[in-house]
Amino acid sequence: MNSNDTEHIHRKFKFILGERFTTNSTIREFHAKDASYHVGEPPFAVAFPKKNKEVSDIVKVCLEYKIPIIPYGTGTGVEGGTTSTDDILCISLMEMNDILRVGQDDKDATVQAGVTRLYLNEYLTEIGSQLYFPVDPGADASLGGMAATRASGTSSVSYGTMADNILGLTIITPDGTIVKTGGRAPKSSAGYDLTRLFIGSEGTLGIITEITVKLVTQPESVAAAVCSFTTIEDAVNTVIKVNSVGIHLARIELLDENQMKAVNEYSGLDYDIAPTLFLEFHGSIHSVEEDSKSVREIVVSQGGKDFRWATDEKERDQLWQARYDCFYACLNLRRGAVGYVTDVCVPISNLASCISKTKDLLSRSKLLYTILGHVGDGNFHVVFPLEMGNKDELVEARSLSSQIVEIALMMEGTCTGEHGIGLGKREALYKEHEQGISLMRTIKQAIDPYNLMNPGKVIT
Amino acid sequence: MNSNDTEHIHRKFKFILGERFTTNSTIREFHAKDASYHVGEPPFAVAFPKKNKEVSDIVKVCLEYKIPIIPYGTGTGVEGGTTSTDDILCISLMEMNDILRVGQDDKDATVQAGVTRLYLNEYLTEIGSQLYFPVDPGADASLGGMAATRASGTSSVSYGTMADNILGLTIITPDGTIVKTGGRAPKSSAGYDLTRLFIGSEGTLGIITEITVKLVTQPESVAAAVCSFTTIEDAVNTVIKVNSVGIHLARIELLDENQMKAVNEYSGLDYDIAPTLFLEFHGSIHSVEEDSKSVREIVVSQGGKDFRWATDEKERDQLWQARYDCFYACLNLRRGAVGYVTDVCVPISNLASCISKTKDLLSRSKLLYTILGHVGDGNFHVVFPLEMGNKDELVEARSLSSQIVEIALMMEGTCTGEHGIGLGKREALYKEHEQGISLMRTIKQAIDPYNLMNPGKVIT
Repeated sequence: MNSNDTEHIHRKFKFILGERFTTNSTIREFHAKDASYHVGEPPFAVAFPKKNKEVSDIVKVCLEYKIPIIPYGTGTGVEGGTTSTDDILCISLMEMNDILRVGQDDKDATVQAGVTRLYLNEYLTEIGSQLYFPVDPGADASLGGMAATRASGTSSVSYGTMADNILGLTIITPDGTIVKTGGRAPKSSAGYDLTRLFIGSEGTLGIITEITVKLVTQPESVAAAVCSFTTIEDAVNTVIKVNSVGIHLARIELLDENQMKAVNEYSGLDYDIAPTLFLEFHGSIHSVEEDSKSVREIVVSQGGKDFRWATDEKERDQLWQARYDCFYACLNLRRGAVGYVTDVCVPISNLASCISKTKDLLSRSKLLYTILGHVGDGNFHVVFPLEMGNKDELVEARSLSSQIVEIALMMEGTCTGEHGIGLGKREALYKEHEQGISLMRTIKQAIDPYNLMNPGKVIT
Repeated sequence: MNSNDTEHIHRKFKFILGERFTTNSTIREFHAKDASYHVGEPPFAVAFPKKNKEVSDIVKVCLEYKIPIIPYGTGTGVEGGTTSTDDILCISLMEMNDILRVGQDDKDATVQAGVTRLYLNEYLTEIGSQLYFPVDPGADASLGGMAATRASGTSSVSYGTMADNILGLTIITPDGTIVKTGGRAPKSSAGYDLTRLFIGSEGTLGIITEITVKLVTQPESVAAAVCSFTTIEDAVNTVIKVNSVGIHLARIELLDENQMKAVNEYSGLDYDIAPTLFLEFHGSIHSVEEDSKSVREIVVSQGGKDFRWATDEKERDQLWQARYDCFYACLNLRRGAVGYVTDVCVPISNLASCISKTKDLLSRSKLLYTILGHVGDGNFHVVFPLEMGNKDELVEARSLSSQIVEIALMMEGTCTGEHGIGLGKREALYKEHEQGISLMRTIKQAIDPYNLMNPGKVIT
């Protein structure tokens, strides 16, 4: 493209967005990559639309001039899903941050894609609603980004993932059409499930601009507790037992001894340096009592120590903040480290064995690591705090990650429980869905024939 | 096609299936249509495969000779989704009826598509499992058919629809490829959600041959009750209140006075002839007590009569059997009648008003009708017992159904909560998803370029 063309195209974008189309180098730098080790180049420009119509108009210009697009939320992804190159127009959704409506009786809300989960929940508290949005990946991600990666997190064992908590979307397809999928009815069997097709498509089929989410009522009672075990197997077996008797915990998180050490150091806490479960119970006062009593019995039967309770809200917040900070606590083990996170998920009955095989593997490596996981879902992460720029370490982390995926796949698991494919898991996706990939590619080519939507991500 | 060709093709099918490929006229007649008023022609033949490989081989022959296919389960659909013509090869899944595995600790099972929900649940009881499959559309439908129409039913207010209770599928695509989607991990963000795309696709994208379903633990305590109200609005407002305070009922069903009269007559019962809620509570002994106490208070506050309990299993079964028989009870109002069922679903806050506008509309018609619904989901049905072969009545029922859809769409609802599109809701689908339709068509054309999979259904 010559500089006349470039000027002409920029003028078109500026006509749509004015100052909200920018080639400022600091802003471009900021949008080069996500929170992971994946290296990116700044996009040639960043657009900050506020309305569906603006996104549609930008996409139409991109189609006309065959300009590839990356939609960008908070940049908290970890698989390189928003990693850019210099021919990309980055469309940031962060100025699409209006809460469009809240349905108190229907327990739903429609928000623009840039609204973050904490912002939505703070807003709900402010207006005096007893409702909140339960999906909680730790980071204060945008709901658009969470939808695009089919995110989940600590509370999904009880409340489900993004796929379970969205009623409908507004999407801008690669030809600029504004499409409403799903709706506000609690259920529907009206044709193909476009909502679920776009959830988890990571911006490769179009841009999610609005989301209608389900909300839940604040539970009457909440209690959180921590208990440690001699071995990680005992902790996981506790989870399996709890699951099998049908007790619904709101959260049930595993942290290995390495992670507990990192947590104590980073968050100034004094937990046992041992495999540990963080638990949260939601329900009526009585059901929380009942459930916690039953779980304690199981914990004792598996050789776990007694519960250490976090009863008031402040203690509970401290406990979960420590959990959310696990990634940073792990990085903190090593000055200036960059994090590499794995993300397999297996049927719960295979979890103890999968973690045990993973630990065997890790014991043969010199890399530092911690293990933590949403074990109620069979999902766990290994975090490697790598030396910034150390290629040998990166190669080793990649090789270990790939071997962990192999272990999980042998155990009927998935290569990615919640982080998506992005750049980092493309080979793993081939291993997991050898036949499915060709169907995914057929869909991608049909909907995005010029391969302009987040090209190179998910499917090569 | 000349008779030599026909013979040649039949030989190919017989080579794959032997006697399980048949042109027997009684069997063909049986597969001409579903349980609804939609009129069909017998397919030219019916295939009864037992294995994925056989389905794949049949589909490859169909692709070679461009023979259209309808996959067929129990034929209990009501929107003409399996309505045939004489150029169709009907692939019945009813001999694919093996339960392939049960994961006791993982609470899942993998079954062939012809396994019905009652057969699976009886099997689970037989092997001494405390697990069961909760989605309950009333009819003893095949799990493949339920997946294909994204079915739900009485228990979905608590346990979700088919879209929420399936982990993975085996599908045969229109080129005969055997594709496994999803898997057994409790969650995954591995690429496009092919599982959810095929759930609700009504056989138009491929054939579902195996399903991995989630199971749930039998609740410790179950209690069911019936209570009647002066007006249907009072009954619906009770449901809205119950929902807003966050009480999770396992079932909450509405039957209007016409339906109650029909139920009493058909099932020999003596309930009040008044708008009535059928309720079921699941949980621990204490939580069921707690929940039913809270719901009773709400019922009283809305002017409802006291609960009539069905405490033991026999009474409970009788109560729910009466509910399942509602359709037949309605047909029983008129000798030899054929049923026409509507199926809108709206946000709960609009439910009372939607039902009220629907009743206004119905009051201006001479057609007999009953109303019943899964009101906890905002979903209700009007059933018309039509005189068999009476075209005027059919035209009027169609017109009323279309007007009920208009009312629901104005209230942000959907034209089909759980019955699917089939033939009967194609126009309504256009009204509901004007822009989405073109995306659905793009997907259909890409995956099934020769339009061989259940042609003419869902999308024209």
